[in-house]
Amino acid sequence: MSFVPVAPDCDFPIQNLPYGIFSTKSNDKKRVGVAIGDFVLDLSVVETEGHFEGFDAACFHDSTLNRFMAQGSKAWATTRSTIQRLLSADVPTLRDNEDVKKRALVPMESVRMHLPAKVGDYTDFYSSREHATNVGIMFRGKDNALQPNWLHLPVGYHGRSSSIVTSGTNFHRPCGQLQADKADPSKGSEYGPCRVLDFELEMAFFVGPPNTLGEPIPMSKAEEHIFGVVLMNDWSARDIQKWEYVPLGPFGAKNFATTISPWVVPLAALDAFRCEPSFGPVQKDPTPLPYISDPNYARGTYDIKLQVSIKPENANKAYPVTTSNFRNMYWNMKQQLVHHTVTGCNMQPGDLLGSGTISGQTDDSLGSMLELSWQGSREVALGDSGVTRKFLQDGDTVAVTGFCQGDGYRIGFGPCEGKILPAHL
Amino acid sequence: MSFVPVAPDCDFPIQNLPYGIFSTKSNDKKRVGVAIGDFVLDLSVVETEGHFEGFDAACFHDSTLNRFMAQGSKAWATTRSTIQRLLSADVPTLRDNEDVKKRALVPMESVRMHLPAKVGDYTDFYSSREHATNVGIMFRGKDNALQPNWLHLPVGYHGRSSSIVTSGTNFHRPCGQLQADKADPSKGSEYGPCRVLDFELEMAFFVGPPNTLGEPIPMSKAEEHIFGVVLMNDWSARDIQKWEYVPLGPFGAKNFATTISPWVVPLAALDAFRCEPSFGPVQKDPTPLPYISDPNYARGTYDIKLQVSIKPENANKAYPVTTSNFRNMYWNMKQQLVHHTVTGCNMQPGDLLGSGTISGQTDDSLGSMLELSWQGSREVALGDSGVTRKFLQDGDTVAVTGFCQGDGYRIGFGPCEGKILPAHL
Repeated sequence: MSFVPVAPDCDFPIQNLPYGIFSTKSNDKKRVGVAIGDFVLDLSVVETEGHFEGFDAACFHDSTLNRFMAQGSKAWATTRSTIQRLLSADVPTLRDNEDVKKRALVPMESVRMHLPAKVGDYTDFYSSREHATNVGIMFRGKDNALQPNWLHLPVGYHGRSSSIVTSGTNFHRPCGQLQADKADPSKGSEYGPCRVLDFELEMAFFVGPPNTLGEPIPMSKAEEHIFGVVLMNDWSARDIQKWEYVPLGPFGAKNFATTISPWVVPLAALDAFRCEPSFGPVQKDPTPLPYISDPNYARGTYDIKLQVSIKPENANKAYPVTTSNFRNMYWNMKQQLVHHTVTGCNMQPGDLLGSGTISGQTDDSLGSMLELSWQGSREVALGDSGVTRKFLQDGDTVAVTGFCQGDGYRIGFGPCEGKILPAHL
Repeated sequence: MSFVPVAPDCDFPIQNLPYGIFSTKSNDKKRVGVAIGDFVLDLSVVETEGHFEGFDAACFHDSTLNRFMAQGSKAWATTRSTIQRLLSADVPTLRDNEDVKKRALVPMESVRMHLPAKVGDYTDFYSSREHATNVGIMFRGKDNALQPNWLHLPVGYHGRSSSIVTSGTNFHRPCGQLQADKADPSKGSEYGPCRVLDFELEMAFFVGPPNTLGEPIPMSKAEEHIFGVVLMNDWSARDIQKWEYVPLGPFGAKNFATTISPWVVPLAALDAFRCEPSFGPVQKDPTPLPYISDPNYARGTYDIKLQVSIKPENANKAYPVTTSNFRNMYWNMKQQLVHHTVTGCNMQPGDLLGSGTISGQTDDSLGSMLELSWQGSREVALGDSGVTRKFLQDGDTVAVTGFCQGDGYRIGFGPCEGKILPAHL
């Protein structure tokens, strides 16, 4: 228990302690904070007060988490235990020091959140079997839904780092090249605003310590290189993507915005929510190659409840359109990281690796409008409002939320949302 | 003419003045230099001596060119004219100041070159029609060689930034997943060293000033955002690529190394080598959409002679295997940049945009071993040595060279090479 009051449905109990970068009106310097209840604990103040030792704690004055991410599990564990002690209801150090408390605990309502890290490289995987199967059925039919490589390796591609934004960043509907005749690519293209704008329900993790170019990360060391996890919405212009993506993959259709939650939940906070070994999916047909087999496969994924809601312009509430779970992933984070480095790729602190769209097995757990509306062939109801959607409309605010449900507390990520403004024409 | 002697076949006459990041044994601080003859002009010394004004010249003490790149064409022009004046045979300022000259002009043989910029995002295009056609014929047959989108937009994809290395960085042959049966993907995969290692003859340009997310760069402003050009070899593990790349594009097959030349040749130095308006290829069937049409299309590409050579282990010389030219590009750099931002993507100073493999129309001008050996169906002779290659072997040093031929001088890029070490097993 913390001396800072935390409601049972608050994202930020003392069991969580996610890291973020914040500033305030009275101090616009970006710095490292940790969320606790309705407050942000300013780690730059805690550092100045001399509470950290045994690692380079000057990193808490940085405008990104990269230097902290780089320091690895010992620094992370020291920091976490120090903060837990300082915030504990039983420990007077911070609790009874009104002066420091006033400077160190900043009301959440007064902070502005920034991107948690300078993302060097951003990779997006495609690791939900249900999502890959659904897309495969739509594009190639049931018999060839999964490509031959899909069960052998976590398919992924490089995304655009510069257009990663934090929650609350609104953006204009993108314009680009669209196939002139939907059914006939030989008719060429036309320029115009995207007509088939979509969200992708994802999570993503930040890389901690680097590996050297040419030296792959083995499975046994993979977890040491994972700093923490965020929610992600990889916005997609489906019609632009359809035209451009052959043969080298998605490009401009994704480069206009990728939204992440501002709080990075450390793996340590998720430890209690690892899946049990009995939990499926299993990887038996085929068994992955030895380098990418995870002897603790199920325990390498996590029970994180996910939801996406849409709030139309002028609506007075947001309507959930899908409910999924991070445990639906076929390839876990460790497997993604190990495969990413197998050819020698050097990962850097602050690199971001996305899960790919996380779909479940039922019609109400699909991670994109593409799947929910089945390529626009069915309407998706926004609750009982009478309003429906096939894809996203201007003015829609899309919010991804997620949390682990503990006994009397939850581990959350804060908001991950953005609003679609009309296209610039 | 410069007071520094420059041989007619030297890459670095006073007409060139490319930028790079260097250090020396006696001063291991990375800093900005300009190549002139067999010397590097240390711009941090020139700055300290007070020769620059009108822009933020402190950037010449930086360990990357990013801050200089960000400042745009006025700062670049001022710098270039200042250096041209200082190096001129007619101007005594530097010529006759032995003290400053000794500190500012560093023998090239004593410098170590580093990556010229911190690359935020790296994009690789696929803009040589001949290359795309050749690959298309191999994979899909003559009738469907070019995909329907290819003549409408510069197809491109995101590459890996962290594995970009500068010339002279050797690397081990990568290991990864290979299709177990070359002809039958349903047989799954096996782990092992790449058997089909290749080079890709490319050039690439660095982005200068950024654009804001959501605000595309129009054609009329595109050139202002291009800082300069380097040689590039986008090493490729063809067998790993073949298995992994469906449907999201190349990934681990390219993430082990991408080599660039250390010297960034500014656009101003290439001005005399723009292609004449009469020069083909033309873009008429189809005419590109208005946003991506370049009214100065031919003048937007450059006559840069390119060559790739292979030097086997223990051979006493390198053997040219192909000769191409940068003017073989169908989509020019401006068109690549404009298309990259059309959906709103924000470019950052130091972003690197590759041309894609640059192939010509003849069998001796193909930009990869894949094409030269036509998928391994024919041997490529290494000169008169009796040695042949289908793909690259351990111990091979591959060098990309390039230059513009002026009247009595040439504009070059320095070395762009790397050696293949045996796989780690």
